[in-house]
Amino acid sequence: VVGIAKIALLIEYEGTSYCGFQIQKGVPTIQGELENTVLKVTGKAVRLHGAGRTDAGVHASGQVATFETQSALSPSTFVKALNFHLPTDIAIKDACQVKANFDARRDALSREYRYTILNRPVLLPLSRRFACFVPRKLNINVMCEACEVLVGEHDFASFTNSEGKAKHTVRTILGIKLGEKGDFVVSDVSANAFLPQQVRRTVGCLVKIGLGEMEIEELFRMIILAGIETTKPIAPAHGLCLMKVNYSNIGFEK
Amino acid sequence: VVGIAKIALLIEYEGTSYCGFQIQKGVPTIQGELENTVLKVTGKAVRLHGAGRTDAGVHASGQVATFETQSALSPSTFVKALNFHLPTDIAIKDACQVKANFDARRDALSREYRYTILNRPVLLPLSRRFACFVPRKLNINVMCEACEVLVGEHDFASFTNSEGKAKHTVRTILGIKLGEKGDFVVSDVSANAFLPQQVRRTVGCLVKIGLGEMEIEELFRMIILAGIETTKPIAPAHGLCLMKVNYSNIGFEK
Repeated sequence: VVGIAKIALLIEYEGTSYCGFQIQKGVPTIQGELENTVLKVTGKAVRLHGAGRTDAGVHASGQVATFETQSALSPSTFVKALNFHLPTDIAIKDACQVKANFDARRDALSREYRYTILNRPVLLPLSRRFACFVPRKLNINVMCEACEVLVGEHDFASFTNSEGKAKHTVRTILGIKLGEKGDFVVSDVSANAFLPQQVRRTVGCLVKIGLGEMEIEELFRMIILAGIETTKPIAPAHGLCLMKVNYSNIGFEK
Repeated sequence: VVGIAKIALLIEYEGTSYCGFQIQKGVPTIQGELENTVLKVTGKAVRLHGAGRTDAGVHASGQVATFETQSALSPSTFVKALNFHLPTDIAIKDACQVKANFDARRDALSREYRYTILNRPVLLPLSRRFACFVPRKLNINVMCEACEVLVGEHDFASFTNSEGKAKHTVRTILGIKLGEKGDFVVSDVSANAFLPQQVRRTVGCLVKIGLGEMEIEELFRMIILAGIETTKPIAPAHGLCLMKVNYSNIGFEK
């Protein structure tokens, strides 16, 4: 009997050309590309399990996903072999073997996302794939105040598209750091877990608040009403990047 | 008689899809796109004069170029009208009217370029268009030492491709700042003016020095021999970006 190894991959991708992480028939997806590539390398079809499903157009510099294989290739050989076959907009940054019961989604202690806004009058070519363009000047102080409202354990049902789907909509936002970096407004959000579209809908509200089109009080209302209200601005996908998934017990180099 | 105004443009572009700044028949160039776009907006063919000619694949976030026009459009209207027609990889950040004798190239007091290197074992998708990939670990301290050799007024004939073309090959490097930012090694070089390919050839040497494949003494030799020697490593175009052209008398907002 050949042993089965579970391999965890640390993955970076530019989401521009993909219909999201999750595999779907007939359209390009990150999971689809990765599963095809593992098949090329090992000769066996695999099912990949990701830490989180990023939306169409969302990027990642630290997605994590696992697959099981009977191949005897070492993790570092997998890195080289997979990168050799992958398209230039997907890369394996690192790989390691994990225990058979490791679950990339359930074992994650927390996730970190970054949302980048270009805040100047003219859309700039060099950041157009990675930053959402907001030409009118944002009020950063008021946005930072709004962030404080969101930190902590709350029912975030008003910040997702999945009413009726997600049974439990309570999540804990561990921190939101928002600040200016030159022409950019960068927002780093970490939570134990996120609801679908939660970061984009959070940033959608923050931008409205920064433009003076929404009051901070509205955020309290959205949290208290927990999904009953339907006013839900959403920020575009291409400004979002999954930066890191944290585990207690995984051996990536970085 | 209608007055002729000279308009200066502050331009950002991603050079990936272009055969450089300078107009050439039958291939896409930044100058060609800009001249076509001014023609669309004003109905008149113009000649654009840039501060510097960037190579094929080189980016810019602060290129400057001028054109003369009889159009009565204000500079801010030019910004909007040109951006409306330009492809997404070229944008006008700002425009202002300048004196008739203003010369974007000759009046420049100094230029600032940034060269970005991704220095980690695996090529990453999110930076692949803007950073040159060097998988082996660079010795930053030795590279910084090497930078000091280059600062000042020297004959940089060994750092250009234009022997016989450029009569005067003495330039003054005002400063080189080189440092690590996460996985990146970023090098900011400013000079009164640069010879063709000077930054790419300088970084080509710095990378060889950082890899232990060239001695710092070789830089002294290249400066002293001033073009007689032919060992000239060159760093790829896509890591380079023209950041800023400095003038004493131009009214861009930023």
